[in-house]
Amino acid sequence: MIELDLEGTVTSALGFKAGAMACGLKESGGLDLALLHSDHDCTAAGVFTKNQVVAAPVTLDHQTLAANKDHIRGLVANAGMANACTGDPGMAVALEMQRSAAGLFDERPEQFFVLSTGVIGVQIPLEKVIPGLALVAQELSAGKGLDLARAIMTTDTRPKHLAVKVFLNGREITIGGVAKGSGMIHPDMATMLGLITTDAAIPADALQELLQEAVNQSFNCISVDGDTSTNDTVLLLANGASGHQLEDETSLALFAEGLNTLCIELAKSIVRDGEGAGKFVEIQVTGASEAAEAKAIAGTIATSPLVKTALAGSDPNWGRILAAAGRAGVYFDQGQVALWIGNPGEQELQIVDQGTPTGYLEEDAAAIFARLEINIRLHLGQGKARANMWTTDLSHDYVTINADYRT
Amino acid sequence: MIELDLEGTVTSALGFKAGAMACGLKESGGLDLALLHSDHDCTAAGVFTKNQVVAAPVTLDHQTLAANKDHIRGLVANAGMANACTGDPGMAVALEMQRSAAGLFDERPEQFFVLSTGVIGVQIPLEKVIPGLALVAQELSAGKGLDLARAIMTTDTRPKHLAVKVFLNGREITIGGVAKGSGMIHPDMATMLGLITTDAAIPADALQELLQEAVNQSFNCISVDGDTSTNDTVLLLANGASGHQLEDETSLALFAEGLNTLCIELAKSIVRDGEGAGKFVEIQVTGASEAAEAKAIAGTIATSPLVKTALAGSDPNWGRILAAAGRAGVYFDQGQVALWIGNPGEQELQIVDQGTPTGYLEEDAAAIFARLEINIRLHLGQGKARANMWTTDLSHDYVTINADYRT
Repeated sequence: MIELDLEGTVTSALGFKAGAMACGLKESGGLDLALLHSDHDCTAAGVFTKNQVVAAPVTLDHQTLAANKDHIRGLVANAGMANACTGDPGMAVALEMQRSAAGLFDERPEQFFVLSTGVIGVQIPLEKVIPGLALVAQELSAGKGLDLARAIMTTDTRPKHLAVKVFLNGREITIGGVAKGSGMIHPDMATMLGLITTDAAIPADALQELLQEAVNQSFNCISVDGDTSTNDTVLLLANGASGHQLEDETSLALFAEGLNTLCIELAKSIVRDGEGAGKFVEIQVTGASEAAEAKAIAGTIATSPLVKTALAGSDPNWGRILAAAGRAGVYFDQGQVALWIGNPGEQELQIVDQGTPTGYLEEDAAAIFARLEINIRLHLGQGKARANMWTTDLSHDYVTINADYRT
Repeated sequence: MIELDLEGTVTSALGFKAGAMACGLKESGGLDLALLHSDHDCTAAGVFTKNQVVAAPVTLDHQTLAANKDHIRGLVANAGMANACTGDPGMAVALEMQRSAAGLFDERPEQFFVLSTGVIGVQIPLEKVIPGLALVAQELSAGKGLDLARAIMTTDTRPKHLAVKVFLNGREITIGGVAKGSGMIHPDMATMLGLITTDAAIPADALQELLQEAVNQSFNCISVDGDTSTNDTVLLLANGASGHQLEDETSLALFAEGLNTLCIELAKSIVRDGEGAGKFVEIQVTGASEAAEAKAIAGTIATSPLVKTALAGSDPNWGRILAAAGRAGVYFDQGQVALWIGNPGEQELQIVDQGTPTGYLEEDAAAIFARLEINIRLHLGQGKARANMWTTDLSHDYVTINADYRT
């Protein structure tokens, strides 16, 4: 059984403490530096950006995970600067953040991850971060997960957090998570940080498989603008503080259900808070020959500027949906295509049958597109594979936010 | 030798006549129906959209070209409706337009191409088109190429046309062209029509090669929004009215130079008139291992919403350029990357060297991005291949135009 805790965060799981402060990296003066610490060693898993241009902390975290996946103790995170395209000096900064965080707990540097998000190509001022970390470490608590969620925000308008309780044989395990996203959200994770903790004990290799599968079902199904970032990272730490060791298939399957639910909800919350997002749109592609083909088509629709501006304008210009599908690099027979649109919980309206418009009423279609939550379902008639994406419209606010991000 | 005629059109070449009228397909009441006719049989070449969803006229033109590439006499074109996703009735409409056009000249249907552009999924009303064609045919002239250019416009704000004179052994050949584009412009040609005529005589197979190469260098190097259309078509008709038969390599090479120049200028004019375009941006990628990889990276930068909004905001946020390059699916070593920005005809400013920022002054970079024509040059340091793209910024006007296209 699974239970959602909408107030939950990364400190909902037993044995995790967090803290955050404003050390001056964000011009807004908001929280921008955070620590997460576990009372016990954690097994760890990580999924990272596939961008060829990666930030120094991502390179460092790859190394940390490879070298030390059974003895992680925590992480340091900052917003304001991404520490990407910063060369050797940037790597020195990431190493110093790691070393400094570990020193505060008399632990080893390779027990800590480092996460940075913000503007690319600017060095993080250590003279602000290092004294800041010492202050944060003094005030860590299990009640400050929300502060951590706030400290990793960039253009996000609200913190994203959730916990899931999993009940196993009458005992309770907690999985907690925070995320930041907003701009650049796209499969392969975009500028997106996700931090997930659990008080279950799970072997690191199993943890990695569970996380990869959860990411595939969640963060890799969201798109705001098709751009991906240099810094995307999702980490999962399992400290065993609940006393539950999960090894058998049944337990792991139930944990997976909880983890997938958590990741899907966090991913959707990122889309809902997408830059300039006025609408939340689910795109389903069914009847494909292969899942990868369905995903390619769903992704092309989800990132088409013409589809997204039509959504912003509440204009059910479905020709753009078919035209976007047609350029995804996937063969299909346009004469077999069917298209439905709808709003969640209500009956769908079929717009296209066998590649041509049905006799639907334009006002019915317009009424569906005028709502804030829209479902688009495209059936290809080629096979049985399917995929879905969650995305937003492309609005004036998106342009405003991104035309002037740095100034 | 080559000479540009900025007033030139498809009727600049000898032996071609055109005409157009407003038959009521466009709500604006503008010209929306046109004929082009040659006094002599033409060899013909065509390049078409690669979208899986293709309009009826594209399917028909494929067939016409395959069956009859040595005896083409003209074409009929309309704007307002694309005749895409219109099923069997749509194909019947396209066939009737072809048959009707041919009948006006006592010629065979398979000697005529049909081109449509506009809204998808709406049937073209033949009761407007057929009588309209009869009226247009009565008033054809060699002075009405510009009317044809206007009649194929959709969201274009101005007609696009040009002629090039090629001087061969003291004699003159003319190549004339018109194009429409604006939205959905992307490699593989987007919603883009290009009609090119010449009074040289060139065998159809050579003509096809020449056109494909010219399209690769021009229309396939432009991107406004990454979307491609169901209707993209570029046609080249050669009627031999100048009395020049081009068969030897030297003549064909000079003709190719003229054709490439014409297509590049038409392509650039489409970008300059891109929907909501405030800026004209050339993206060069050099130092790639292979040309296809350079093209993939240039295309990813050219379609990145974050890069394009930064251009709209005159914000030299170069990190977005590198981040876009990094997600193109092409391997490169970020430590080898160099980046320059500039304005045409002025010295470039190097922003990144070996993957890290140079000591450039922010105000110098901002001054470059504030101008209307911007060059971006990214060197990968992997090899010797290169590619370029022409694109625009992503502005509020783009959203305005596309959020409300149909209404």
